[in-house]
Amino acid sequence: MRVSDLVVRRIGRLTSWALPVLTDAALVIRGGRVAWVGADRDLPPDLAELPELDAGGAAVLPGLVDCHTHAVWAGSRRDDFTGRLSGAAYSPAGIHSTVAATRAASYDELRALAQQRITTMLGTGTTTAEVKSGYGLTVDDELKLLDVAASLTGPTVTTTYLGAHVVPQGRDRADYVDEVVATLPAAKARGAQWCDVFCDEGAFTVDEARLILTAAARHGFGLRIHAEQVAHTGAAALAAELGCASADHLDHVTVDDAHALAAADVVAVLVPVASLYTRSGRWGHARTLTEAGCTLAVATDCNPGTSWCESLPFAMQLACLEMGLPVETVLRAATVGGAKALRRDDVGHLGIGARGDLVVLDADHETDLLAHLGVNTISRTIVGGTPNG
Amino acid sequence: MRVSDLVVRRIGRLTSWALPVLTDAALVIRGGRVAWVGADRDLPPDLAELPELDAGGAAVLPGLVDCHTHAVWAGSRRDDFTGRLSGAAYSPAGIHSTVAATRAASYDELRALAQQRITTMLGTGTTTAEVKSGYGLTVDDELKLLDVAASLTGPTVTTTYLGAHVVPQGRDRADYVDEVVATLPAAKARGAQWCDVFCDEGAFTVDEARLILTAAARHGFGLRIHAEQVAHTGAAALAAELGCASADHLDHVTVDDAHALAAADVVAVLVPVASLYTRSGRWGHARTLTEAGCTLAVATDCNPGTSWCESLPFAMQLACLEMGLPVETVLRAATVGGAKALRRDDVGHLGIGARGDLVVLDADHETDLLAHLGVNTISRTIVGGTPNG
Repeated sequence: MRVSDLVVRRIGRLTSWALPVLTDAALVIRGGRVAWVGADRDLPPDLAELPELDAGGAAVLPGLVDCHTHAVWAGSRRDDFTGRLSGAAYSPAGIHSTVAATRAASYDELRALAQQRITTMLGTGTTTAEVKSGYGLTVDDELKLLDVAASLTGPTVTTTYLGAHVVPQGRDRADYVDEVVATLPAAKARGAQWCDVFCDEGAFTVDEARLILTAAARHGFGLRIHAEQVAHTGAAALAAELGCASADHLDHVTVDDAHALAAADVVAVLVPVASLYTRSGRWGHARTLTEAGCTLAVATDCNPGTSWCESLPFAMQLACLEMGLPVETVLRAATVGGAKALRRDDVGHLGIGARGDLVVLDADHETDLLAHLGVNTISRTIVGGTPNG
Repeated sequence: MRVSDLVVRRIGRLTSWALPVLTDAALVIRGGRVAWVGADRDLPPDLAELPELDAGGAAVLPGLVDCHTHAVWAGSRRDDFTGRLSGAAYSPAGIHSTVAATRAASYDELRALAQQRITTMLGTGTTTAEVKSGYGLTVDDELKLLDVAASLTGPTVTTTYLGAHVVPQGRDRADYVDEVVATLPAAKARGAQWCDVFCDEGAFTVDEARLILTAAARHGFGLRIHAEQVAHTGAAALAAELGCASADHLDHVTVDDAHALAAADVVAVLVPVASLYTRSGRWGHARTLTEAGCTLAVATDCNPGTSWCESLPFAMQLACLEMGLPVETVLRAATVGGAKALRRDDVGHLGIGARGDLVVLDADHETDLLAHLGVNTISRTIVGGTPNG
């Protein structure tokens, strides 16, 4: 991780979350961390030697935090896409074709594909990204994917072991669950910080998920869970029971689930691109979760089958326009909300001491990131004080 | 309009609509027009002197035709956007705030804003664009907007007089309709080829629209109509009665309307970004229109209040994912469909003699333009044989 000094001047509107929105602002990063924030005219005089970036009156936000991505895969799911336009329903079984293509790809091929996606994420404003395995589904292939994920540069990457994505074809369920559990120490040694389970109809049951995640907690993993996407199975309640850092998807969440998540401080991760891509027609869960007082995050769920999208702003736009969430709620969900889903308090905001991760918009108001569709409104992404990654 | 010679080689998949999709193809443009299409290995030998573009195995499509845009405006409709997230319904009355900002802007300011939007359209694949007036609503301001529209470069632009966008504040309805009719000759002299009326609840009645469009036809304008967006008013039936080139929006179209449009050869222009942006929840009309046998086009409706989006691929993605239209239907709607809505037979396809307007994708399959969200999958746009406009 490069850390730099930088003065960002002439910020039209600065959203730091640590202060009210500041106009005509400046921000100083020293050693990769925010050292000063205030009015441009009040900038301390002893900064002459620091590199300077002129924001030209543009709006600045904390760097975006994408807390749910499956960015390491090979192959295409074009057929799933066209099939759903003919009325086919989403099924987790489509994952198997990506597993076959991913197993067939070399480390270098996978790394090149994933790095291209991560670089696209950076260009659309993401400064911290979670990246899951899950398209290997053998011990060696899962560890290869974790190695690829750990090698990615640009945004700060945290990696998640998702051996429990689906039961691989030709494998006995119970044997495979045992293998996932047995692989936890090796996954941890590869740097994986999180363990995730796709707990849903067509994937893993609540009991299987409990077994895997309980073992993962013993091995020091933080816990995440794919919950209530395809059907209501009780995965959200399990997330609350186990104190997962996040429960993700939640299209079929109930009011009781939502209250349980809020009480257990489990972040509710919305992935609206997946709802669009699978043509689920489900958007109401965002309001259910908000009304229960859950902390929300929004993420891309970047993956080949149900959300081929690296752009967190695109997901944020759907969170507004399809889920009906207000602008500030969505901006918080994509910054501090994502950070909380990753149990980070040093990113997602620009208070003193935070990492110097921020985005400069090609717009003078932060709302335009959400209101201007179909274009990239991010003009510069700064990670640890270093412009453009 | 620049016209050039160009050989495009190593096309992975060429969709010309004149032939089945060709793989490993090449295409020759002479004097701005398609002169040869075929297998790369069969390229005629006498082309050594022509400039060459190596598509590197990428997919190539005809240049996109965006047949409905309001690209000339000043000011922001940020407040309408945030208001709708709080549950406010769309109303044409929001247009008045854009009218005020647009009247206050100089020709040069408007031209710079509109040119930036048109350049963004070009970068996202649009090689032919229709541009409407409609935010002036005085004789002088409407003519100023038509002058701006006619001055735009990049895609080939055709301009539309939309004096009948809404009745301006402080004006008598009947007087204003008379003024619109009286302005037709001056609008024609400014190069406007089309006359359009926003015929809907809160805008103009069917009788007012009939009066304006009938007069426009006498003055040699082609006719277009904003129909059945806010409510069902009979505007689609009027489009069929008058033989309009297109009827646009159509969210509230009936089965009878759809059959009337098909019988009268009126192109049905889908603008799904507006449906998303106004949070109408209406998507089913696309199927109604398809089932009636209408020719479909898809357009951005680029405007500040209800579709702030220059990207036709973004609109096409919604046509697939929200409207449930198949990939080929949407690709045709954005190329030959848009061309037919503008009564052009020389764009939207790549048959021999067509204009050399095409897009090279950053993908090896045309489906990826629709399946890969949140990024710009257009790598090169070629207008009249000239790469990147």
